[in-house]
Amino acid sequence: MKKIALFPGSFDPFTNGHYDIVNRGLLIFDQIIIAIGHNTTKKRYFEVAKIASELKKVFAHKPQISVTTYEELTTDVAKKHNATFLLRGLRNSTDFEYEKSIDQINKDLYPELETVFLMTKPENMAISSTIVRELHKFGADITKYVPISFT
Amino acid sequence: MKKIALFPGSFDPFTNGHYDIVNRGLLIFDQIIIAIGHNTTKKRYFEVAKIASELKKVFAHKPQISVTTYEELTTDVAKKHNATFLLRGLRNSTDFEYEKSIDQINKDLYPELETVFLMTKPENMAISSTIVRELHKFGADITKYVPISFT
Amino acid sequence: MKKIALFPGSFDPFTNGHYDIVNRGLLIFDQIIIAIGHNTTKKRYFEVAKIASELKKVFAHKPQISVTTYEELTTDVAKKHNATFLLRGLRNSTDFEYEKSIDQINKDLYPELETVFLMTKPENMAISSTIVRELHKFGADITKYVPISFT
Amino acid sequence: MKKIALFPGSFDPFTNGHYDIVNRGLLIFDQIIIAIGHNTTKKRYFEVAKIASELKKVFAHKPQISVTTYEELTTDVAKKHNATFLLRGLRNSTDFEYEKSIDQINKDLYPELETVFLMTKPENMAISSTIVRELHKFGADITKYVPISFT
Amino acid sequence: MKKIALFPGSFDPFTNGHYDIVNRGLLIFDQIIIAIGHNTTKKRYFEVAKIASELKKVFAHKPQISVTTYEELTTDVAKKHNATFLLRGLRNSTDFEYEKSIDQINKDLYPELETVFLMTKPENMAISSTIVRELHKFGADITKYVPISFT
Amino acid sequence: MKKIALFPGSFDPFTNGHYDIVNRGLLIFDQIIIAIGHNTTKKRYFEVAKIASELKKVFAHKPQISVTTYEELTTDVAKKHNATFLLRGLRNSTDFEYEKSIDQINKDLYPELETVFLMTKPENMAISSTIVRELHKFGADITKYVPISFT
Repeated sequence: MKKIALFPGSFDPFTNGHYDIVNRGLLIFDQIIIAIGHNTTKKRYFEVAKIASELKKVFAHKPQISVTTYEELTTDVAKKHNATFLLRGLRNSTDFEYEKSIDQINKDLYPELETVFLMTKPENMAISSTIVRELHKFGADITKYVPISFT
Repeated sequence: MKKIALFPGSFDPFTNGHYDIVNRGLLIFDQIIIAIGHNTTKKRYFEVAKIASELKKVFAHKPQISVTTYEELTTDVAKKHNATFLLRGLRNSTDFEYEKSIDQINKDLYPELETVFLMTKPENMAISSTIVRELHKFGADITKYVPISFT
Repeated sequence: MKKIALFPGSFDPFTNGHYDIVNRGLLIFDQIIIAIGHNTTKKRYFEVAKIASELKKVFAHKPQISVTTYEELTTDVAKKHNATFLLRGLRNSTDFEYEKSIDQINKDLYPELETVFLMTKPENMAISSTIVRELHKFGADITKYVPISFT
Repeated sequence: MKKIALFPGSFDPFTNGHYDIVNRGLLIFDQIIIAIGHNTTKKRYFEVAKIASELKKVFAHKPQISVTTYEELTTDVAKKHNATFLLRGLRNSTDFEYEKSIDQINKDLYPELETVFLMTKPENMAISSTIVRELHKFGADITKYVPISFT
Repeated sequence: MKKIALFPGSFDPFTNGHYDIVNRGLLIFDQIIIAIGHNTTKKRYFEVAKIASELKKVFAHKPQISVTTYEELTTDVAKKHNATFLLRGLRNSTDFEYEKSIDQINKDLYPELETVFLMTKPENMAISSTIVRELHKFGADITKYVPISFT
Repeated sequence: MKKIALFPGSFDPFTNGHYDIVNRGLLIFDQIIIAIGHNTTKKRYFEVAKIASELKKVFAHKPQISVTTYEELTTDVAKKHNATFLLRGLRNSTDFEYEKSIDQINKDLYPELETVFLMTKPENMAISSTIVRELHKFGADITKYVPISFT
């Protein structure tokens, strides 16, 4: 059976940390679906459509990776795509506590779903979407932190 | 002297985690006042009045438990109700650091007030009001996580 | 029914942090039993008998507090003394994770046992038995950190 | 060479915790520039101009300390003032993880910049700008927590 | 290519927490090698040979799982067995910080090695080998916490 | 007045993490004394004399750095060398909680002593003396992790 994993997130924006996790995830999974969550009530900095189209270009040469967007529960998107795995990166202990809670709730909602965690590499440990947005807002060059071009 | 504890929170919504803490709190205190804090400048998801009326039904058979709402400092509500204890649950280390700071400030404002902490049970550890709101927003069934009916 | 709490620990030595927790515990419990755990396979720095006899003097004027020693499971000592509560102090997030695990196992072994946690006061936050032993070993004056005289 | 440090923050408001860190920072640095960051898109509770003018009074007798405001990247302000150090206080492990990330990004943006951390004193550990704002909003007396008069 | 994972640990003893992680690991890997590390200079409570023989019985019906013992670097054992993955469970933030460091060093020693983390289930979160040893030492029944019989 | 800092530790062994902190410390202090603590009751892996002599070679070209050994309280060594600063690196939140307690006790024992913390660089975050000892014990090449030759 093919191992399909969902890599969910708001990706506002998608960073090199995310990029590394997806690529290492290919060692484990046959197919990875990057799922960009958006929420009509929560304002984004980078548009979902922009992130999605750039990500498709970034991963164009890797047919095992696809990109989708969603506005529902993560577990529902996973079911819809026959994904029985979630893929997540862990950076620090604050991340950890949050992910632990989410994992437990996801297991309640979809018991067949298994979340697989990889440690973020040291050089990406400090990169969060929040920090990248701050840098971008102040006109700093963010190309060092993201695989996508925002020009 | 009767031991009176305030159980303060925004309870947006009141979860099974809160429910369990209140019930175990009855082993310690003679009277527990559930105090639903609201803040005119901060938007809620569930209405205070709705939560309050449902909670009164939930605890109708337990005369030691009462329900109130407030829009002031927690320590002031405690004083008003002659409560010399606060009751709080602890889920994880993020909670812990927050509660430690609040406890210290409360002691400054009302030195006679003692905060008593109970550990959340493993099965409730992942349930937070924030997660329950998210689930509700996406139409998931939350009855498993809350003692109140939201129909 | 009388509320009896066990305050277990190795107390090697008993510090001002412990002292403060016991005293504040009296606001909650009718009786507190300080239970000094020792373990024949683990070497102590201060003798159990010395700590026990000093503690009896320290709390001589408080009939609600008694002192005992034990070499068994904490839950078994609690049962033997009809204690349905454990009393514990929390200093930092490392403490917290440890106490959370112990609490869960204790509930397995003795479901009627409830552990009540109080936050250590800021001025006692840094005082651990380990640090006090280190200071004592190097000849520093530890009277500032312990309620007991070690002369 | 003169050692110049920037002490950046939103200081909404400037607390006794901040005050203590700046004063202890003078043991290390020849000059400290308190830099009040503001962000046109994020609403403040206390006005930047008010905080700045009060801080100038508070530190009027200490010529090594100056006060400025900024609306750009912290590293850019540091460069502008020839500051090769940032000064930051650490209160708890949540603070710590955040500061660790920021430090790493700052090193990327400005490799000559070194961030120096001091531990917040126990008596100030619980004081955060967020808590002080809450207290002020509910009419509590905050003079105990801030070096500035808000009358 | 077959996905082979090493599940290393001292397993003194092997707990239900470990058992659950191995079983869930089978959803990801084709083969899992449980590797019991021992260290001639560090005293164990349960004998390696005993744990190994019991584990072989426990997993006798699962040909994808094998059991080995080792006295070398974990990365060297992984290489020897052609394992390109390590499997590890995460219980709490103390675990997390430790695992993060080990992961980084392992990547240095063996760059092709990827460590996959699964969250321990809530009901196993409190079970550590250390606690189980303590319980056993005091004569408590540990069958609830371990898949192996120690009779 | 000259700014003298003590950089205390057991340095068993001295790692690249320590090396980096000392070097960055020179940006702040006029003189840094590396103080290798040893404790007759605690067994070391690398001999104090060996570490001391190698460190002297490593820093031979930097006259601002000296090396000493001690068997007393850290604060007493600091006093003896007229050091009014301690220099310490911070790697993770477990480190942080420990350092916070030690800092508070040190302030009690020697109020004029200020501890200055620097964040360990990402590439050194995983390197601890404990891990390096483990690697060495199993015959791994540790030259990547330490500035000293152990041949």
